[in-house]
Amino acid sequence: MTEKIKIGMAGFGNVGSGTYSVLQRNAKEISRRAGRDIEVSRIVVRKPERISSLVDESVKVTTDWKDLVQDPEIQVVVEVMGGIEPARSLVLGAIEQGKHVVTANKALLAEHGNEIFALAQEKGVNVAFEAAVAGSIPIIKALREGLAANRVEWVAGIINGTCNFILSTMRDTGRGFNDVLAEAQKLGYAEADPTFDIEGIDTAHKTMILSSIAFGIPVDMSRIHIEGISKLEAKDIRFAEELGYRIKLLGITKMTENGVEVRVHPTLIPNRRLIANVEGAMNAIVVKTDAANSQLFYGKGAGAEPTGSAVIADLVDIARTIDAKSSQRPLMPTLSTLGNKPWSDFGDTRSSYYFRIPVDDKPGVLADIAKVIAENNISIESLIQKEPAYPETSTEIIMMTHQAKESDVQRAIRTMQQLQSVLGPIVLLRKEELR
Amino acid sequence: MTEKIKIGMAGFGNVGSGTYSVLQRNAKEISRRAGRDIEVSRIVVRKPERISSLVDESVKVTTDWKDLVQDPEIQVVVEVMGGIEPARSLVLGAIEQGKHVVTANKALLAEHGNEIFALAQEKGVNVAFEAAVAGSIPIIKALREGLAANRVEWVAGIINGTCNFILSTMRDTGRGFNDVLAEAQKLGYAEADPTFDIEGIDTAHKTMILSSIAFGIPVDMSRIHIEGISKLEAKDIRFAEELGYRIKLLGITKMTENGVEVRVHPTLIPNRRLIANVEGAMNAIVVKTDAANSQLFYGKGAGAEPTGSAVIADLVDIARTIDAKSSQRPLMPTLSTLGNKPWSDFGDTRSSYYFRIPVDDKPGVLADIAKVIAENNISIESLIQKEPAYPETSTEIIMMTHQAKESDVQRAIRTMQQLQSVLGPIVLLRKEELR
Repeated sequence: MTEKIKIGMAGFGNVGSGTYSVLQRNAKEISRRAGRDIEVSRIVVRKPERISSLVDESVKVTTDWKDLVQDPEIQVVVEVMGGIEPARSLVLGAIEQGKHVVTANKALLAEHGNEIFALAQEKGVNVAFEAAVAGSIPIIKALREGLAANRVEWVAGIINGTCNFILSTMRDTGRGFNDVLAEAQKLGYAEADPTFDIEGIDTAHKTMILSSIAFGIPVDMSRIHIEGISKLEAKDIRFAEELGYRIKLLGITKMTENGVEVRVHPTLIPNRRLIANVEGAMNAIVVKTDAANSQLFYGKGAGAEPTGSAVIADLVDIARTIDAKSSQRPLMPTLSTLGNKPWSDFGDTRSSYYFRIPVDDKPGVLADIAKVIAENNISIESLIQKEPAYPETSTEIIMMTHQAKESDVQRAIRTMQQLQSVLGPIVLLRKEELR
Repeated sequence: MTEKIKIGMAGFGNVGSGTYSVLQRNAKEISRRAGRDIEVSRIVVRKPERISSLVDESVKVTTDWKDLVQDPEIQVVVEVMGGIEPARSLVLGAIEQGKHVVTANKALLAEHGNEIFALAQEKGVNVAFEAAVAGSIPIIKALREGLAANRVEWVAGIINGTCNFILSTMRDTGRGFNDVLAEAQKLGYAEADPTFDIEGIDTAHKTMILSSIAFGIPVDMSRIHIEGISKLEAKDIRFAEELGYRIKLLGITKMTENGVEVRVHPTLIPNRRLIANVEGAMNAIVVKTDAANSQLFYGKGAGAEPTGSAVIADLVDIARTIDAKSSQRPLMPTLSTLGNKPWSDFGDTRSSYYFRIPVDDKPGVLADIAKVIAENNISIESLIQKEPAYPETSTEIIMMTHQAKESDVQRAIRTMQQLQSVLGPIVLLRKEELR
């Protein structure tokens, strides 16, 4: 066997400790697959005393991330500390020193990926990040290698376990968002400050990375439309169910004639689709391509060992080709000729829509609404008007549309919102066939 | 860009033509990912005149497979002719000449894989076969690379589209096997001679390959237990449904304390599992591992372009590292230290069981049966006794068991079959929780 490779880890939280323990437990099999031993030689953490009993005594445990950059023994830096700084400085510093990097940091890549990949290209090193999207699921590898023959048409994923747990539970129990969020927090599925998850920001970071890989374009968080799940009401989940749909928070990226779309929002999905049946904290991603057609990848999106599994897969890939020329390493970042293709404007997005419109139970109301809809080039696919609790009080119209243009829909909503018979805010959700 | 690589194809049927047309259509993107152009320089087919109008005039089209072996220009041979001979001679001949091989031929690998991989190892060339299992789904890559950190516990897959189409349709419509098979043949989902598919042989070949990759052991078709779907009755699908299960033809391989199990049989799966909801001709594979836990991969298992997509993914992997040392190529076959671990005997398999027992509607019958069951260390999980059409005529007992040992179950069946009150052959099916 060739010489072992030495790695340094930044961070030893959930993902770091999961990576370490799987590396120890399955060392023999991992070495066989990597063609050499992988040895953790240094770990950088804020409080070394907390972890010294958890790792082998041969591992140097220190506190300054610069130790990783400067240690000449270390060939690969595993960044599992999270956050933007000092993660960004560490990653750039390591690349600058000719070290390969494995990172699970989706925020870092979604915000600063271009800078990081440009430097990696210049220095001829790998930056691998399977763990940054959908935890254990080898989706980055599938997009870059498994589907290398294909043109990607779109990617749509349930890639935030917290949101999927909340939405699954709301549907199963009929309970409201805040109630279920509190339960998710108690069970450890949601953080004390859940904003990042429930407002869709985490999903947006991952979707941006998927978009970049699927279409070979630079990341640009300013181009992504983001809606979370915190305003979703139990009754919309119920109405969607009546109509044959489940609501999931999807990250979607699509190649259209206007450019690449990237968006995150609660989405109605026909309940016969496999992805509509992904429950609890699980993740799943559907990829639609020209040759392979439709594929789905399903697994754990978070957790110490599942995420560690993805980190180690990257380490094995790097170890296997670490002596090869950089062009022979499959993980080299490559931007396609699409690199300068413009993003599509969100207003140009085409989707189908679900409206819930609170209205007066009076004659002519539906005619007024239907007129606004038609004037904005939207056509109605189906409609439910709920019986009011008492005659001539308020009621609700649930409407599903055919494909329409987002800017037309926004204009229609603004106009309807002015109608005297519309009694409150109109709820707008989007539907995807995912076919 | 570095020099292009030249490939030779044997066969130009469904998979061959799909591979060729995707290679042409997406040439630019494929070259970008491979780091070089991939050029089809020769195609060997029985009737060249049939394909000459379909391929570029620069492609040499000849009839003797030895042309591929002897052509010094050709670096990679793509074997998509199927069958054992001359495919085996071609593959071995190409390897002998130091050429890499991409094959979609599951029968060849399941029957002769050891010989082929040993020679490839000796000659330092790749034999890649993503297309041999589950068509478009990058399952070989997932097992070998994406899950490289993991110990696989088991793999279970719906990997024959013909059988899944038939079973889905039987369940949807309540129709019988022969009737639905005829429809599948009419629609092109089943061959005129469907034996290979419906008797589980195709599934067995693919399962053997999955087992070999998952556990790093040589192939051995003599160790696999195979039952197809041709004897499955519509009423068992209905009873399973009543009990909360779907019946799918699964290929299963499992690491147990007695060694590796490999088996193919119709299987009851709880209907809330994602894989139970895989309908029509689609394929899906669940992989359970120690670190990543449970993953599912879903997609098209057959078809010209989906299978071509997998062939090309292998070509891209080979092209990317064709100049590297053989140890640096991720596709090198490796057998693990488990290589000499014995296979488990089928009689030692532990599973849960479904029995349908046609009986006399007389007092004491159930007591007799329950006694045999208990004497063979089997415990009953649930039981349905169907009301007979007329009193004191025949009826049926449907029984689900807890985990039991196959040899105990076989003995119990033989004993029950001797009981006077058992009126006909007992139907035996196996159930897997897939959790």
